[in-house]
Amino acid sequence: MTNTRFTALAQTLPATVPFVGPEAQERAMGKDFRARLGANENIFGPSPKAIAAMQDASDGIWMYGDPESYDLRHALAEFHEIPPQNIVVGEGIDGLLGYLARLVIEPGDTVVTSQGAYPTFNYHVAGFGGVLHMVPYKNDHEDLDALMRKAADVDAKLVYFANPDNPMGTWVSGDSIVAALDNLPEDTLLVLDEAYVEFAPEGTAAEVDIEDPRLIRMRTFSKAYGMAGARVGYALGARDLIRNFEKIRNHFGMNRAAQTAALAALADANWLADTNEKVVQARAEIDGIAHANGLTTLPSATNFVAIDCGRDGAYAKAVLDGLVQRGVFVRMPFVAPQNRCIRVSCGPSEFLQILADEMPKVLADLG
Amino acid sequence: MTNTRFTALAQTLPATVPFVGPEAQERAMGKDFRARLGANENIFGPSPKAIAAMQDASDGIWMYGDPESYDLRHALAEFHEIPPQNIVVGEGIDGLLGYLARLVIEPGDTVVTSQGAYPTFNYHVAGFGGVLHMVPYKNDHEDLDALMRKAADVDAKLVYFANPDNPMGTWVSGDSIVAALDNLPEDTLLVLDEAYVEFAPEGTAAEVDIEDPRLIRMRTFSKAYGMAGARVGYALGARDLIRNFEKIRNHFGMNRAAQTAALAALADANWLADTNEKVVQARAEIDGIAHANGLTTLPSATNFVAIDCGRDGAYAKAVLDGLVQRGVFVRMPFVAPQNRCIRVSCGPSEFLQILADEMPKVLADLG
Repeated sequence: MTNTRFTALAQTLPATVPFVGPEAQERAMGKDFRARLGANENIFGPSPKAIAAMQDASDGIWMYGDPESYDLRHALAEFHEIPPQNIVVGEGIDGLLGYLARLVIEPGDTVVTSQGAYPTFNYHVAGFGGVLHMVPYKNDHEDLDALMRKAADVDAKLVYFANPDNPMGTWVSGDSIVAALDNLPEDTLLVLDEAYVEFAPEGTAAEVDIEDPRLIRMRTFSKAYGMAGARVGYALGARDLIRNFEKIRNHFGMNRAAQTAALAALADANWLADTNEKVVQARAEIDGIAHANGLTTLPSATNFVAIDCGRDGAYAKAVLDGLVQRGVFVRMPFVAPQNRCIRVSCGPSEFLQILADEMPKVLADLG
Repeated sequence: MTNTRFTALAQTLPATVPFVGPEAQERAMGKDFRARLGANENIFGPSPKAIAAMQDASDGIWMYGDPESYDLRHALAEFHEIPPQNIVVGEGIDGLLGYLARLVIEPGDTVVTSQGAYPTFNYHVAGFGGVLHMVPYKNDHEDLDALMRKAADVDAKLVYFANPDNPMGTWVSGDSIVAALDNLPEDTLLVLDEAYVEFAPEGTAAEVDIEDPRLIRMRTFSKAYGMAGARVGYALGARDLIRNFEKIRNHFGMNRAAQTAALAALADANWLADTNEKVVQARAEIDGIAHANGLTTLPSATNFVAIDCGRDGAYAKAVLDGLVQRGVFVRMPFVAPQNRCIRVSCGPSEFLQILADEMPKVLADLG
């Protein structure tokens, strides 16, 4: 087959990956990271009940997963006090963002997001030919008002907003999002990524009528529930919008053991509460490490903390590179001025101690 | 968001699922199947080493899987004696077929397959606006020559061929496929689905130069390796073709425990050989059950057997319904005259015995 048989769009797309995985970095370095603090994984891990459920399910892995994720969807429906028809389960938020882009974006359609926000969303939009319009952060927050204005200016089909935000960890109240919906252009859909919302203060989740056609909310078992490797996310939205995913999704795409584990994780509210306590403690530890090195941190409503390295992006990159070379995997924002920071995931003290040990050496090396 | 904001294509697509899952049938019946013999799952299950690997990996499920599936791709490269750059790992063959359709199909593009062949392929083609042209089976085999002719007639971008075939279990030699490639129109890509090839006689897999640009081969851990619920498939093809998947695939879509388990499954060649012996035995048992009931079977190179119910599709459907009501999950071909058959997956004797017990009652009920 010649290249000309690829779609016109596919011919223009780069072969790219939104993030290089830490394993690829480890292979390049020829050694493993001592502290894996870069991917906003939840190093405290999932509920032991979820792990047990996953292990129990391994004997039945010869069976396809239920394409309807019936049990999980119904448990989520009860949890959110909404009908199951308003929920679609998918292969992580990444998978669901891809499906959503496919449902909505035709080549040339416009989409609005923040400059430096989640690159995988951008990857999917570009992958369907969408044209991205970027709005700068304002005081290290995604700028809700400016996003709404830009969406109106460019007649956007989608506008993306993560609350809490990644990579900065900042957040706005759910009420302010509800209020902003009134400024959302008619026929624009708000993609509200709430991947980290379980870590956030009460009132951060947007309280909206589940049949409100103006937004879709993305949730995941990858963060607070500690199951990033399982690939279970879900979207909440109006029934008609959710039904459209049935037209295109990979119906048999869910790992069966992951479905079972998510069900067990959801049921273990105590573990989630414990995790949140650990994360609060870890944020304080990261804050302490930053201050001990003369640096500051941004307030965070997530399981990661942005450490402000106090200079420009090149300096933060040098700090990051130094940490990576010393076995500490961290990442950083892509865009100025947010790229003055490095982003550190929460985890047990034994791993944060490695950061504490190495940070002064890295800074000393840089002078 | 109003319906008019969905893509023109999405607005025309039905909300559909290629297969209703057995769990949905169980929920509708209010009872579980006693014998799950309908989805061509491998009831003999995966290698115990794969199960152990999956269980061991559950502690690390807080980590995303390696987006490059590096270890698995390299093990597969060694196994197939090809470079790893010629392999893409994905969320089952279903996921990979979706990616391939996305790379190649624009609305109105033509695709050729057999009438009654794998519906999930059709689902993905239609999902990207492709126009399907169907060629009838010939003597219960997919008709390779007719498919090639049709591909030329309609200037197909893709032509699908499963070897061995699902749902009939029939097969052709790998050599005949290699020979047919010379009749493949220039700029048509052969999608060779070898999901069941590990069950087939020596010489069934097509021996082609891995850089041959005329075909892509699909393989899976769902069938012979017994891990349908894990969602691990892979495609083999020319480096340039495979590289194109990097443009669009869900890079972090693979379940981490599934990657590890696939690696262990691949390494356990003895288990695969044992499975094949068990499948040969089970095919003979299904054959015996058919004959004991005055029915015949088709020769099979897969882990399922098509039982010819000897009359028309309505009769076979009545047989299927009777079995389902009696707790035996089976499926059947969609299209005449193949729909004179029901399709029974291989499994341990305890489950086939349930089929043996119920079949005479079902046939007696039908008279």
